[in-house]
Amino acid sequence: MQTDEHSLGELAVRFGLCLRGDPGLRVSRVATLPNAAAGAISFLANSRYRRHLGTTSATAVVLSEADAPHCAAAVLIDSNPYLAYARIAALLHPGPAFEPGVHAAAVVAAGARVSSSAAIAAQCVIEEGVEIGARVSVGPGCVIQRGARIGDDSRLLARVTVGAGVRIGARCIVHSGAVLGSDGFGFARDGEAWIKVPQLGGVCIGDDVEIGANTTIDRGSIDDTVIENGVKLDNQIQVGHNVSIGEHTAIAACTGISGSTSIGRRCMIGGMVGFAGHLSIADDVAVTGFTLVSASIRESGSYSAGIPATPTPEWRRTVARLRRLGRRDPRS
Amino acid sequence: MQTDEHSLGELAVRFGLCLRGDPGLRVSRVATLPNAAAGAISFLANSRYRRHLGTTSATAVVLSEADAPHCAAAVLIDSNPYLAYARIAALLHPGPAFEPGVHAAAVVAAGARVSSSAAIAAQCVIEEGVEIGARVSVGPGCVIQRGARIGDDSRLLARVTVGAGVRIGARCIVHSGAVLGSDGFGFARDGEAWIKVPQLGGVCIGDDVEIGANTTIDRGSIDDTVIENGVKLDNQIQVGHNVSIGEHTAIAACTGISGSTSIGRRCMIGGMVGFAGHLSIADDVAVTGFTLVSASIRESGSYSAGIPATPTPEWRRTVARLRRLGRRDPRS
Amino acid sequence: MQTDEHSLGELAVRFGLCLRGDPGLRVSRVATLPNAAAGAISFLANSRYRRHLGTTSATAVVLSEADAPHCAAAVLIDSNPYLAYARIAALLHPGPAFEPGVHAAAVVAAGARVSSSAAIAAQCVIEEGVEIGARVSVGPGCVIQRGARIGDDSRLLARVTVGAGVRIGARCIVHSGAVLGSDGFGFARDGEAWIKVPQLGGVCIGDDVEIGANTTIDRGSIDDTVIENGVKLDNQIQVGHNVSIGEHTAIAACTGISGSTSIGRRCMIGGMVGFAGHLSIADDVAVTGFTLVSASIRESGSYSAGIPATPTPEWRRTVARLRRLGRRDPRS
Repeated sequence: MQTDEHSLGELAVRFGLCLRGDPGLRVSRVATLPNAAAGAISFLANSRYRRHLGTTSATAVVLSEADAPHCAAAVLIDSNPYLAYARIAALLHPGPAFEPGVHAAAVVAAGARVSSSAAIAAQCVIEEGVEIGARVSVGPGCVIQRGARIGDDSRLLARVTVGAGVRIGARCIVHSGAVLGSDGFGFARDGEAWIKVPQLGGVCIGDDVEIGANTTIDRGSIDDTVIENGVKLDNQIQVGHNVSIGEHTAIAACTGISGSTSIGRRCMIGGMVGFAGHLSIADDVAVTGFTLVSASIRESGSYSAGIPATPTPEWRRTVARLRRLGRRDPRS
Repeated sequence: MQTDEHSLGELAVRFGLCLRGDPGLRVSRVATLPNAAAGAISFLANSRYRRHLGTTSATAVVLSEADAPHCAAAVLIDSNPYLAYARIAALLHPGPAFEPGVHAAAVVAAGARVSSSAAIAAQCVIEEGVEIGARVSVGPGCVIQRGARIGDDSRLLARVTVGAGVRIGARCIVHSGAVLGSDGFGFARDGEAWIKVPQLGGVCIGDDVEIGANTTIDRGSIDDTVIENGVKLDNQIQVGHNVSIGEHTAIAACTGISGSTSIGRRCMIGGMVGFAGHLSIADDVAVTGFTLVSASIRESGSYSAGIPATPTPEWRRTVARLRRLGRRDPRS
Repeated sequence: MQTDEHSLGELAVRFGLCLRGDPGLRVSRVATLPNAAAGAISFLANSRYRRHLGTTSATAVVLSEADAPHCAAAVLIDSNPYLAYARIAALLHPGPAFEPGVHAAAVVAAGARVSSSAAIAAQCVIEEGVEIGARVSVGPGCVIQRGARIGDDSRLLARVTVGAGVRIGARCIVHSGAVLGSDGFGFARDGEAWIKVPQLGGVCIGDDVEIGANTTIDRGSIDDTVIENGVKLDNQIQVGHNVSIGEHTAIAACTGISGSTSIGRRCMIGGMVGFAGHLSIADDVAVTGFTLVSASIRESGSYSAGIPATPTPEWRRTVARLRRLGRRDPRS
């Protein structure tokens, strides 16, 4: 971790936090409560870890007013300590700087327009008609295909595929192995065979979107697949063709969204959720992990269908009785 | 989108469609019913979108006889309008042509046999003993390992891995990030440790197979994993070692198939379905999304086990009562 | 398959097996019972295949004492025939040798330390500060980022991403498309937007670990994500930030483990299992496939929640009655 050192007083002023403790104390890195040493700043945002407050060796802790009295260290108080921590961590650990320029072992087409402040790493392929904005970082082994556009300050980690014509906004982060703009799964029956339906749309990704490792987003069949501003997608998510995902929706890993489903704004979707196709999901919907969403959801709120694990012998009996529920029963 | 222009009369003749409207009208691109403008051809194959028929600005619409009277535009009628649309779309949007040849930044082993009509893109690696057929396109960053074979007219998008000895038939499409021929998950217990069982079989993929982005297909442990002609696999599917999938079966995204399971012909498997190992699934089986298949299926038909999402408080009560079903109860 | 030839007597002595048959018989390759020909050695470890024992054309079969009398061929007897088979297969099919050295089309930073006995394939990128141990094989298209370390005798197949600072032990195998060290999914709410929480920890992988194709392992948010010695992960598994997985645990494909969950030693986790975050799973726990684990498991044993597929009409009735269970009912 690259680090910078700052005083608590400076942090309190910069981020508008209430400091209780010596403003001259200095911190240079973040740490968890149990593993912190002098010079580290920690945080408490999950009550599960409150028991470490009294014994931490951190120099300072970011926490809420209610937790402050229980802390052995100097405290920086905020009503949203996790957010305050995020900002302090970004300040202390700014991440590696990159040098602008195109690596000698990258292949950039003559007709691609790459900002002089962008960095294109080794083994990349940038095809004709691509536009890459200012201060963009394209990591090793990425492939950016014909006519794709990447907005200012976006960052692609390693081995990302950006398909032809895909547009990515500003300040996005795309993790390794993600594929943006693969063909949607569209086939027409011809007797017993399947005939491919050409997938001619694009993918349009807004600003401040983060896309996880090995996540796949299919291009639209005719119109675009749309990921709006501020959406956060975890790893190994599958987004089908013509899906739209509204602003600031966050989706956890391994979730799959079938074609033409529209998810609203500010939704929170758990891991391994499956959405059927052609659904409409309202704004502000939460879906807990491991849930099948097979019908549209018109009202905000929380939805579930996951059954928690049970000792196997007990579960076998449950399944046996569940099966009986499905048999025709004249009394019901 | 690259496009060609054709008259409705020409389309009707070429694809055997019934035209109602001016045969001299010309179309150059496809569009959805609500977003079409003059010069575009659209289609109706899902009754969900029938409401747009009366107001579309498309020059022509492909649809069924029953829907024809409700359409504001010229119509091309077929009993399978989605199939007719697929063919027209492929004609209007033929996709980018590729130039045969091996890119200077590809690495091709001396002993590989690459057809002179094939195209090998930048940053590819083609190892010893590989055979690549006529008019094959291997996209940027693909790795084709020792002795693999790729049949005529197949197309690998970007960053595909084809493992040693894997055989791919003719006219296949493999999307970015797919891995064909990874080791199966085979280990023998040795006390508390696991000893690797060498995975020595291959992967044999027929003709006209399509494989989605980031899908993985393991090589057989001794004999081959087999994907028959015309199979269509969506993104992020996992196919275990020694699985076989019969002709013209289509499988939606995120489904996992455990080792040695055999799936029949013309099956339609939904997304996020899980198959246990060593099963036998009959021909013409449909499995709806989010279903666990833990036993062989001997009869064609539709099978399910997914529970649709419910408001969370109601679901919690359901789970509580479900649990009671599994407790021993002398009255049951 | 590359092969070596050995006599049954030699195999019996080398692996401590009981031979019934001519010790001078020679085998050069493995085969399944039904597909074996002379010169092949087969095995029986799953009673499902016992019917082939009497008719196999294999020269020899590895099996248990109880199965020996039923076999048409020479037999090599062991109480763990699958383990004995694994060792014989590794002897007969040692896998391709690799030539040490760095391919001319790999990009290796000046400050990387690569053992002279390691092999770095074409199109790899090895960044500054990386350490690669003796006899390591890094396959085509891999990206090893700043400061990562790979222990002796480990093998990375093709297109693997090893993120900055990730440590991999000795004798590990990492399959194509795997991503080790992607950012965890950490965001803090700021009004309706999400602010990224820097992901500053690493990934620490022990010795003898195998990681499947397109599996993703996130780096810790502050401390490390930990995969202990001997863990086996199948394809397309997602491991969230700060997860720990204990020694010799094996996890089947498509399973997802949410952040900060700790799984014990010697666990056996089925495919497509979903773990919620911040859980603690005991040693020696088995979870059957397609199960949601949403609470900690304190006792070893087997746990389940998967419902097997049923004909769809019957299942619809089951779901309808299940729903009634969740409605408020004053009589219950």
